[in-house]
Amino acid sequence: MYTEKVMDHFSNPRNVGEIPDADGEGTVGNPTCGDLMTIYIKVKDNVIEDIKFKTFGCGAAIATSSMVTEMAMGKTIEEALKITRDDVADALEGLPPVKMHCSNLAADALEAAIEDYKKKQ
Amino acid sequence: MYTEKVMDHFSNPRNVGEIPDADGEGTVGNPTCGDLMTIYIKVKDNVIEDIKFKTFGCGAAIATSSMVTEMAMGKTIEEALKITRDDVADALEGLPPVKMHCSNLAADALEAAIEDYKKKQ
Ligand code: FES
Repeated sequence: MYTEKVMDHFSNPRNVGEIPDADGEGTVGNPTCGDLMTIYIKVKDNVIEDIKFKTFGCGAAIATSSMVTEMAMGKTIEEALKITRDDVADALEGLPPVKMHCSNLAADALEAAIEDYKKKQ
Repeated sequence: MYTEKVMDHFSNPRNVGEIPDADGEGTVGNPTCGDLMTIYIKVKDNVIEDIKFKTFGCGAAIATSSMVTEMAMGKTIEEALKITRDDVADALEGLPPVKMHCSNLAADALEAAIEDYKKKQ
């Protein structure tokens, strides 16, 4: 049911945690299962120099957030905003259709965190 | 939203893994989100001497399975069968209503594992 990449990011998730003095923070909810996902970013010279996520969601939510944080780390704000839900699913070599609503949380929370950062500037 | 007990069992889940030579194995699915939960048991002299779980489900699924494996460990088959969904939720000091479909997986998978064990005798 799940690709090796998904199982890897689920079993050893990257960038789990909070950033207390984050420059931007975005939380989105999954209406299907009630789970929340929060992404925190630290930005320096327009570049995401640290990023962490926190979720109580399922394996698909964990794997996609782990992947999206890896993809966004070191990117400029503009580059990071271009990461789509599909990019994340592709990087994980696919996700089962039943899990799409979980996996969309990651890209959405990243976008919300960046919007929050912009608002604060 | 979640009690300290839930967060503890979510952050440090007990008895995660598989038992390759299990005496009983039970898998149940969550129709709401498509997640699966498997529980494995080793039984000696009618007592559950080892128990492990595996799930790709959410934090509530992880916390309840962690708790149910702790509750069942060392119990006789008959005692373990008496553990209800409510017992698990009570031991965790409550779960949000939106997560009940996830938390029911644990007691159901334990029952399925015991039924599997009985069938094999
Ligand atoms: S949302 Fe799938 S097990 Fe909880």
